[in-house]
Amino acid sequence: MSGCVIRSIDAIDARFELPAGAGSDAVHTNPVYAMALTHLATDSETTGVGLALTLGSGNALVCEAIRMLAQPLAGKPIDEIMAQFGSVARGMANDPALRWLGPHKGVVHLALASITNACWDLWAKSRGVPLWKLLLDLDPEALVAALDLSYLEDVLTPAEAVAMLRNESATRAERETILRTGYPGYDTSVGWMAYDEAKVRALTLQAMDRGFKAFKLKVGSDKEERDLRRAAMLRELTGDAGILMFDANQRWNAPDAMRMCRALAAFRPLWIEEPTHPDDIHAHVELARAIAPVRIAAGEHVPNRVVFKNFLLYGGVHYVQADCTRLAGVSEFLAVSLLARKLGLPVVPHVGDMGQIHQHLVLFNHIALRHEAVFLEHIPHLRKHFVHPAEVSEGVYRTPQQPGASCDMRET
Amino acid sequence: MSGCVIRSIDAIDARFELPAGAGSDAVHTNPVYAMALTHLATDSETTGVGLALTLGSGNALVCEAIRMLAQPLAGKPIDEIMAQFGSVARGMANDPALRWLGPHKGVVHLALASITNACWDLWAKSRGVPLWKLLLDLDPEALVAALDLSYLEDVLTPAEAVAMLRNESATRAERETILRTGYPGYDTSVGWMAYDEAKVRALTLQAMDRGFKAFKLKVGSDKEERDLRRAAMLRELTGDAGILMFDANQRWNAPDAMRMCRALAAFRPLWIEEPTHPDDIHAHVELARAIAPVRIAAGEHVPNRVVFKNFLLYGGVHYVQADCTRLAGVSEFLAVSLLARKLGLPVVPHVGDMGQIHQHLVLFNHIALRHEAVFLEHIPHLRKHFVHPAEVSEGVYRTPQQPGASCDMRET
Repeated sequence: MSGCVIRSIDAIDARFELPAGAGSDAVHTNPVYAMALTHLATDSETTGVGLALTLGSGNALVCEAIRMLAQPLAGKPIDEIMAQFGSVARGMANDPALRWLGPHKGVVHLALASITNACWDLWAKSRGVPLWKLLLDLDPEALVAALDLSYLEDVLTPAEAVAMLRNESATRAERETILRTGYPGYDTSVGWMAYDEAKVRALTLQAMDRGFKAFKLKVGSDKEERDLRRAAMLRELTGDAGILMFDANQRWNAPDAMRMCRALAAFRPLWIEEPTHPDDIHAHVELARAIAPVRIAAGEHVPNRVVFKNFLLYGGVHYVQADCTRLAGVSEFLAVSLLARKLGLPVVPHVGDMGQIHQHLVLFNHIALRHEAVFLEHIPHLRKHFVHPAEVSEGVYRTPQQPGASCDMRET
Repeated sequence: MSGCVIRSIDAIDARFELPAGAGSDAVHTNPVYAMALTHLATDSETTGVGLALTLGSGNALVCEAIRMLAQPLAGKPIDEIMAQFGSVARGMANDPALRWLGPHKGVVHLALASITNACWDLWAKSRGVPLWKLLLDLDPEALVAALDLSYLEDVLTPAEAVAMLRNESATRAERETILRTGYPGYDTSVGWMAYDEAKVRALTLQAMDRGFKAFKLKVGSDKEERDLRRAAMLRELTGDAGILMFDANQRWNAPDAMRMCRALAAFRPLWIEEPTHPDDIHAHVELARAIAPVRIAAGEHVPNRVVFKNFLLYGGVHYVQADCTRLAGVSEFLAVSLLARKLGLPVVPHVGDMGQIHQHLVLFNHIALRHEAVFLEHIPHLRKHFVHPAEVSEGVYRTPQQPGASCDMRET
């Protein structure tokens, strides 16, 4: 067991240049992708690695917060930490000196995401299994003990969470076929904001050739007609069979969002994503009513399970884009997944991790929680930097087999 | 004008020891009060000083964010900056590399609070007037140009804000008497969580002797009967005339909050403050319905104007406890004050600044926006550290006369 004791914690500020225009959207015009990495060193060669995505200089703040927050983990066996990780995470989230900076949002919460993901990675590696298998092998009580469900009690108690997991276990076997078949990806990289129309066209055709059937387009241009023209082109290219999603990255105020969402609905997207400020539940509810049957997707900037609970109770979101690198890691992602299951909404993660961790979580959600594996965002930007990059072939995410949460990165 | 050009920006991490038990509440058990100070140096001896409160080690993160965020101000005259501060602040709030860490919440937003407050302080000093007078002297267009009202357009446009200010100006004179009379303070320092009952009793009697008529008690104890006992004692001490407020500092989950608020309502508080998680609008709405005529106060951890808009539209708060050291400074405080005025709710600030800046803002809100100056929280903890501490005598805040926003601190 000595190899599973955390000996020291380090935070690494890793930054990555992107090709021109890649990653650009309506509010992040020239992003530098950055990972705030948590490294949990042990007595053995095994290192737990966790990550959170940021977009540049602020990454240093998250790394510093990781160093402040993670110290209580040093000297403890990972099994002991994870046996009651709900309490451990709650203790870190409520650190009396740091809680004031949120609570449960912003820099400190991103740090908790990275730390939490490193703990899950180390736990899975210490057992020699991929994260999805670790999660599936835990009994319901053990899984729920690893989650902080505080402030959800009016909708979901720990006992209910255990009961939900137990109820679904009878029919697990029929859903385990997904481990062999994989599940679809959707391609976000065809439609970055800075790409001109010729490039969007060429990339979409390539993606269709490679087996993708669903595509995301960035909207929220300075000139509205540009959004409409690009949307029309994409619909024409993919035909009626193409599944389109439009992503405004919070650009519009509420009245502009109403006007633009109505105009874009003509191109029959599955969803419009982040149409306005991510804190504006009321505006999302109004939009959701106005543009049906087009749906609202949001979550990449919904900071925690409590805000998700509010979005769900008020009806401000249909596709729950939880992200374990924005929420407090794998644990809060699972808390939100339980909540969404209880309230009958699908979880389609946003991939701040480029899909590395979420490829595991979609499998767990599908098999253990009967969340349909609709599809998972695919962004291969940082592929070459991962030791075990997510494998997407013929438009399908393939089941990862290496131990851990697929967060190991090459030296950069 | 050269004396009003910002030459350099510095951030100072100032920390203050408190007497044993002071400042303690249900979730912050042993706080270290810390100020993230922004210093704007100019060619003259005038320095703009802004502050944001934190509770200890996280203060260093806010200081680092101040250094990252404020650089665009260097080399510019303060008059030029403030003539369009709404755009300037929006630019900082939407810094493409830092926005991702929120947006508009957490460490980066606290940094913007401190920077913004320093800009207002410098502007007032450069004109040789206290902040309240600067604000009252600005014409409505100039004032609104200093505010970022984006994402409020569905409820309040800049044109409406100008019209509101103009409408109220006809009756200003009758409200200017407050400059001579002052307005009441309420005493938060009688009922810190760690104080035993004898101490609460002695401090309350002293405060009554000093002219205070309103008192806050921390609740959310580990043992619920302790809350009820302390509340009963305070009601008995102050009699029916005493105005009591109970503050749970987010300690309870929604079901516990419902039970405890109902029990505490027996002691006839004016409000119960932060009964549960500050992001849980839905739970606040349920509580507000259940415990009327007792009211809900919240705002100290409502991160920005958009979340306030949602609290107000859904009916989750009655007393709007905006705090210019948590929101993006004086500007976002004023944006929330306009919003609350439009929607008919009183603003009673939480004083992360120990009342130093808010003493000015209550005067402005009362005179220019016809917000009743109900009373203002009084916490004299850090009094000795300010160059011009707020003057509260006979339980009444006295009008500050020194130029600026009263943020200058002594060397510590």
